[in-house]
Amino acid sequence: MLARLLAACLALGLARAAVSPVSVFGHKIPDTDAICAAIVYSWELECRGIPAKAFRLGELNPETAYVLRALKVEVPALLESVDAHDTVAIVDTSNPAELLDNVEKAQVHSIVDHHKFCGLKTSAPLEADIRPLCSTGSILYARAKAAGRKVPPQMAALMLSCILSDSLEFRSPTTTELDKQYAAELAKLARLDLHAHAEAMLEAKAEVGHLSPAELVMMDSKVFEIGGKKLRISVIETTKPDKVLQFSNELKEAMITMREQQQLDDIILLVVDILQERSVFVSSSESATKLVERAWQCSVGPDGTAILANVLSRKKQIVPAFESAAAGAPPIRLESNDRVEPERAAPRREGFLHKVRAGLR
Amino acid sequence: MLARLLAACLALGLARAAVSPVSVFGHKIPDTDAICAAIVYSWELECRGIPAKAFRLGELNPETAYVLRALKVEVPALLESVDAHDTVAIVDTSNPAELLDNVEKAQVHSIVDHHKFCGLKTSAPLEADIRPLCSTGSILYARAKAAGRKVPPQMAALMLSCILSDSLEFRSPTTTELDKQYAAELAKLARLDLHAHAEAMLEAKAEVGHLSPAELVMMDSKVFEIGGKKLRISVIETTKPDKVLQFSNELKEAMITMREQQQLDDIILLVVDILQERSVFVSSSESATKLVERAWQCSVGPDGTAILANVLSRKKQIVPAFESAAAGAPPIRLESNDRVEPERAAPRREGFLHKVRAGLR
Repeated sequence: MLARLLAACLALGLARAAVSPVSVFGHKIPDTDAICAAIVYSWELECRGIPAKAFRLGELNPETAYVLRALKVEVPALLESVDAHDTVAIVDTSNPAELLDNVEKAQVHSIVDHHKFCGLKTSAPLEADIRPLCSTGSILYARAKAAGRKVPPQMAALMLSCILSDSLEFRSPTTTELDKQYAAELAKLARLDLHAHAEAMLEAKAEVGHLSPAELVMMDSKVFEIGGKKLRISVIETTKPDKVLQFSNELKEAMITMREQQQLDDIILLVVDILQERSVFVSSSESATKLVERAWQCSVGPDGTAILANVLSRKKQIVPAFESAAAGAPPIRLESNDRVEPERAAPRREGFLHKVRAGLR
Repeated sequence: MLARLLAACLALGLARAAVSPVSVFGHKIPDTDAICAAIVYSWELECRGIPAKAFRLGELNPETAYVLRALKVEVPALLESVDAHDTVAIVDTSNPAELLDNVEKAQVHSIVDHHKFCGLKTSAPLEADIRPLCSTGSILYARAKAAGRKVPPQMAALMLSCILSDSLEFRSPTTTELDKQYAAELAKLARLDLHAHAEAMLEAKAEVGHLSPAELVMMDSKVFEIGGKKLRISVIETTKPDKVLQFSNELKEAMITMREQQQLDDIILLVVDILQERSVFVSSSESATKLVERAWQCSVGPDGTAILANVLSRKKQIVPAFESAAAGAPPIRLESNDRVEPERAAPRREGFLHKVRAGLR
């Protein structure tokens, strides 16, 4: 009897505990997909009767700041730690290295992501919805459609922003036909001109004058273990590469310092020229030069830079090129007038051959 | 031009390569959910236009052998290895320790599972559908419903078998209301008497006379790292515990040998009495005795056994009890006439308090 009473009290306590909202967040060094997907997924959870609150794990980049300002969406609060008592939901990554320290001890309610598995462990069974689409926003929209949930214009605009950001307005080889279809549907729901919104995002992204060289290198950056080396791979996606490249000496110096401080083997910086659909590699060491020369069979010039034609995606092109090179596979051969064939780099997904441009307007 | 031609050839080659079927399998030491879900998921993939073939990673247990025989379903072929060229789909686990050695190098097309994340890494983005339901079969049925796929009777019978097996016909605290609803729907689609099918499965499961003591210990067994110790936790779920317990001395001897051979800290064996809804712990060492006494605040008798009232589920009760004990939490207090309140052991999931019995008939 006493035990039953105790159990009832416990259950009540749990019911109350369950009211404290689930903390929803994306990865550290957040990008537009990490921030907007956290907001949209907390909306989804609320629709499902699960109290939820969106957070960010770092400062907004200029593009994301523009998106939230333009859509009149509040900036999520900064989350600095989690512990075993917290219930969390994760978007846009399942990589423990990109999350807060105690995340594996927390109660992970769910994960919505579009990356590979990176070794996360959880303390209990969970919900996970992972799909090879270009953005987390795409998956969240697919979920809303499947559940027959009415999507408010603001939520649609956030999901559209995820797709446009992660696909560089459909230029990246991560883009699928489904992403393009979803973007068109979301633009209608959001009552937004898709291309104009994308242009404004790119414009905001190109405004990086207020950032220090170190901040620029860290703005969109992830660490990978490849071939036994710890590499930080940073990309700066911009429509105005010259604005960045005029500071290439300062960027090199920042990278040399950061490599030391962060105990990395190398930092690889690629300035992605979105409109020209190519990247400029900025070398900060002899070993970084060699890595890039081996991965793409190219020559880095005496100024320490190299143009990598048609290289746009870290996930589909840059990381696979380094992984192939580390595994001893033949390098990706660049030809100035052809795309790097992403099949060489990441042979699994269909549809990479198509030039995934425009189409929607 | 040449590059474009090469690309076209490559694409053609890939299209042909994509025709080689995806290998679908569950965990090593397969149970009914691992085997039947592999068969059902390969059916789903085929329906989706993705050639697929179900495999097993080990010998069938008596219950699963009965199910396939009764439903006239072919036994999947044994898969002994995978390599980086194979495309695979995984059901009922995402734990690399329960899979083939090279699985992290293979192309993982997708995962359908109902367990916690255990640290798997994949080489590329993938599809993953993970939900906290009682069986993989439940998730596969939810997917078929969501996609509007017509479920043939044989497939329905396989999914029903998954649910009945993993939930011990709804006795296990892993059972959710959704699992019970799905089972009722699947029994109709399969034109099967749910309870009669469950009884026949339990009957088959109790027939273990042909197994050696070591085979019995390994029949449903998983290894866990808990509190810095490597524990093999084996359960023998049976309606006829006496048939097993008459060999408790032989079981102890087998465990002592296996602990040595497999370099484990301990083997914990629980003979789960499905009808009485309790487990009998059979100790094979002083340290195993202490672990169990600490986890459940019980006394192991001089014969090396202890009755753990209402303990049925490795996932929801046994593993969490050891984890709590290792983390210094107060032990689960057993009272002979009360269920172990699973909330204590695994506080996250709703609905555990209900006695999840019968109801359907």
